Amino acid sequence: MSKAFDSLKVYLDRAMAMKAAMVLFEWDDATLAPKAAGELTGNVIGILSGEYFQAVNNEAVKKLVEECREDDSLDEAEAAQVREISRELEKLDCIPQEEYQAFARLSAEAVRIWTEAKEKDDFELFAPTLKKVVEYQKKFAGYRAKDGQKKYDVMLDDYEPGFNMELLDRFFDTVKAEIVPLLKAVEESRVKLRDDFLTGDFTDEQQEQIGRFMAEYVGFDFNKGVMAVSAHPFTTNLHNKDVRITTHYNERLDSSLFSIIHESGHALYEMGIRDDLTQTMVGEGASMGMHESQSRFFENIIGRSRGFWVPIYEKLQEAFPENLQDIGLDMFVNAVNKAVPGFIRTEADELTYSLHVLIRYELEKQLIEGDLEVEALPEAWADKYEEYLGVRPETMREGVLQDIHWSQGSFGYFPSYALGSAFGAQLYYHMKKEMDFEGLLEDGKLEVIREYLREHIHQYGKLKDSRRILMDTTGEDFNPEYFVKYLKEKYEKLYQLNEK
Amino acid sequence: MSKAFDSLKVYLDRAMAMKAAMVLFEWDDATLAPKAAGELTGNVIGILSGEYFQAVNNEAVKKLVEECREDDSLDEAEAAQVREISRELEKLDCIPQEEYQAFARLSAEAVRIWTEAKEKDDFELFAPTLKKVVEYQKKFAGYRAKDGQKKYDVMLDDYEPGFNMELLDRFFDTVKAEIVPLLKAVEESRVKLRDDFLTGDFTDEQQEQIGRFMAEYVGFDFNKGVMAVSAHPFTTNLHNKDVRITTHYNERLDSSLFSIIHESGHALYEMGIRDDLTQTMVGEGASMGMHESQSRFFENIIGRSRGFWVPIYEKLQEAFPENLQDIGLDMFVNAVNKAVPGFIRTEADELTYSLHVLIRYELEKQLIEGDLEVEALPEAWADKYEEYLGVRPETMREGVLQDIHWSQGSFGYFPSYALGSAFGAQLYYHMKKEMDFEGLLEDGKLEVIREYLREHIHQYGKLKDSRRILMDTTGEDFNPEYFVKYLKEKYEKLYQLNEK
Repeated sequence: MSKAFDSLKVYLDRAMAMKAAMVLFEWDDATLAPKAAGELTGNVIGILSGEYFQAVNNEAVKKLVEECREDDSLDEAEAAQVREISRELEKLDCIPQEEYQAFARLSAEAVRIWTEAKEKDDFELFAPTLKKVVEYQKKFAGYRAKDGQKKYDVMLDDYEPGFNMELLDRFFDTVKAEIVPLLKAVEESRVKLRDDFLTGDFTDEQQEQIGRFMAEYVGFDFNKGVMAVSAHPFTTNLHNKDVRITTHYNERLDSSLFSIIHESGHALYEMGIRDDLTQTMVGEGASMGMHESQSRFFENIIGRSRGFWVPIYEKLQEAFPENLQDIGLDMFVNAVNKAVPGFIRTEADELTYSLHVLIRYELEKQLIEGDLEVEALPEAWADKYEEYLGVRPETMREGVLQDIHWSQGSFGYFPSYALGSAFGAQLYYHMKKEMDFEGLLEDGKLEVIREYLREHIHQYGKLKDSRRILMDTTGEDFNPEYFVKYLKEKYEKLYQLNEK
Repeated sequence: MSKAFDSLKVYLDRAMAMKAAMVLFEWDDATLAPKAAGELTGNVIGILSGEYFQAVNNEAVKKLVEECREDDSLDEAEAAQVREISRELEKLDCIPQEEYQAFARLSAEAVRIWTEAKEKDDFELFAPTLKKVVEYQKKFAGYRAKDGQKKYDVMLDDYEPGFNMELLDRFFDTVKAEIVPLLKAVEESRVKLRDDFLTGDFTDEQQEQIGRFMAEYVGFDFNKGVMAVSAHPFTTNLHNKDVRITTHYNERLDSSLFSIIHESGHALYEMGIRDDLTQTMVGEGASMGMHESQSRFFENIIGRSRGFWVPIYEKLQEAFPENLQDIGLDMFVNAVNKAVPGFIRTEADELTYSLHVLIRYELEKQLIEGDLEVEALPEAWADKYEEYLGVRPETMREGVLQDIHWSQGSFGYFPSYALGSAFGAQLYYHMKKEMDFEGLLEDGKLEVIREYLREHIHQYGKLKDSRRILMDTTGEDFNPEYFVKYLKEKYEKLYQLNEK
């Protein structure tokens, strides 16, 4: 029992309450709030953000943190909270409060303008606001940079502690070197996979019904969560007993389906965090990359495997009889694994996905560290798509306006998506040694896999960072080779690349 | 420009932001939040409530309020805000912060327990919590009572400033003396109105579609508002550009319909408040009674009139063809005005409605000022229903558990419902002198009526109290005779009571 920590906890609880309120406003804005509400609600969010700022960034807290740092009586969770708040303080300490609040308001506004710009396919509508967002983010990173640290490295470290441009350049160089040729081979393969039967004229209700079933099947607990619709699917949570996912419906039956499995992967992480950690600063996923490893693990490694569909494919056929009644399981599984270079990251197959991320990584680097101007983004974006994926987007909606992240000021976030896939592959090869992975899927025993992930990853929240988790779980530090191995094995088999 | 007011405004803005966050959490809890979330989300609400408390109740604010009170340079809206915050301060000053926060948590919990108890039809599940709520409310009123003021008078004044037990006893005595015999005459009338065609097996989608049309028809602007489903219909708002209503669907097609018109009346009030008042302490309706006057004006005086349905009855017939295609306009309008003593206040007709309120008023008085125990409520409730309405509820769900109010600690609220009807009747007789009321309805020109209400009532928010509004609008202080006149004229005609 530490008196200093007890005093600190009052401030932390207040900060977490402000954060929870902001989360709810964000959720509400994305799923429900009326159009005209934005500006006035932005005032409220600005104030909540200021209150958060003040709750953690004040002299009393700083003093208490110092005391707690020297206090040996703290338990693991308490010590981790002190570590987190120190990190946060260091970050906030550099940023003047007015600028921090002004950015919170700008960001709320930017999300709305981005939404409208995407609808109207009009980048120029968004560009001036995005420019301001970039300027704020560069300024903030500049305030925070230590010992000649690069601005983009500051940003990267926020989402994946311990990873910087040097490491990521190496990772993405491997990806580029291995995946671009693999994709070329796939495209030249004589194997042509059918997926026409995935497209149709489905009602939202029809998709929602099977979507809810899928969420529950992978383990999403509707007693502790809700599902709604938004422009871009996302997961958020107030605590481990209120976790929320969104999806969107379109003419591809697999689009919403795999979105839901993906977001459920995120949700399972948050639902699995220990009760003594939730509502504290360490009560969330270890890092963006580790979070993404869970969502992509469920979406791809589990969700796109043959075994996963064995027990439930009939159910899916019943949900979409006109499309699937004459399609066998193998043909369906092949279809949802078809690799086709496209424009939209969130709709991309596993093979091309990391190339979408690679492009964003390179653009962000140039935007933050190089001389790429916001105005030149659409052109640069299209050029890179042409170079790596062989396709050139003709609309902004399919190009530079597709993702919400930049409007929120989340630069440095994208790389974590690709890292997530790589973490997931490393976990997968290890788990295959520990259990009959494919057999469990075929028997519908997802709870065994889920429980393994909960025990080794979810429960810890931010008590461990991603490299620690990989080390403790797989006995090995982060190793990107598993990712390449996984994709090669999968796509060489699917497209019969070794059977000339 | 007042420096003191500018400084005060920073605190007030913070308080209003906390309130907005609490409003959103309440909305979310009632419409969407997962079941298991309650306890942990309650922690957040408790902290927000404490922050609200601290934002308005501190030495700096008290000093600034004193300065502002002596400042002649404040404009009308600013002076009104100072008046409101003084009222609020006076209220909060008496209540220890820990108790205030503890009650906020208790109340959030009580709403959930009430929901469950109602579902399970189990009063005993709710009683211990309700007992605590009553104790808190009595204690708070005791802290706040001035010069031997009665506790229940303190509560009444919160919802309808200027009204106390003495005035309300007189009002309800009139209601009892006039309405109970009128109801008896209606029941003995040889006129038997059909309403069997209002019941059917409707889908939620079917009801929602026509419900949205109705909301828009009466003037609810979906650009500034949303509609959702909750156990008990209500209206809430974040500001004048985010106003939210709920409804619920059942087997009576008129139930959700008139709920929506009712809540839209509340919503129009909030949407009509001036831009310079919204997000301030005077940016809401003048009083609960005045608010209820608007909702009941739309629901009953407008919504249950023949003229209202002339332009849109065909639309309604198309929405429910099996039920309404052979039913003429007059038969439909008579049906939705049928007076039948029932158990549920929110489903009650205009005639019996005030008797439901009378019962609650008498029970609250006994609960707060007399010796009625919470445990004895169900019996006392049933006795009074038998006495005034001639019906005795057999379930808790249809009896003492039907309303959410007591779980929220809202004692003294119910009388405002009946006052609302009385205010509405007074406004109606005045408006009939100013415009061709029935003709406007028949021509579908609701905007003229709406604009009149906006101009005379809505725009002012809390700048005027209810008696001031009545005086300025109708040239007369509150006069309950109009209410009795309205009901007598309407029901004597409908049931041909003078045509023996």
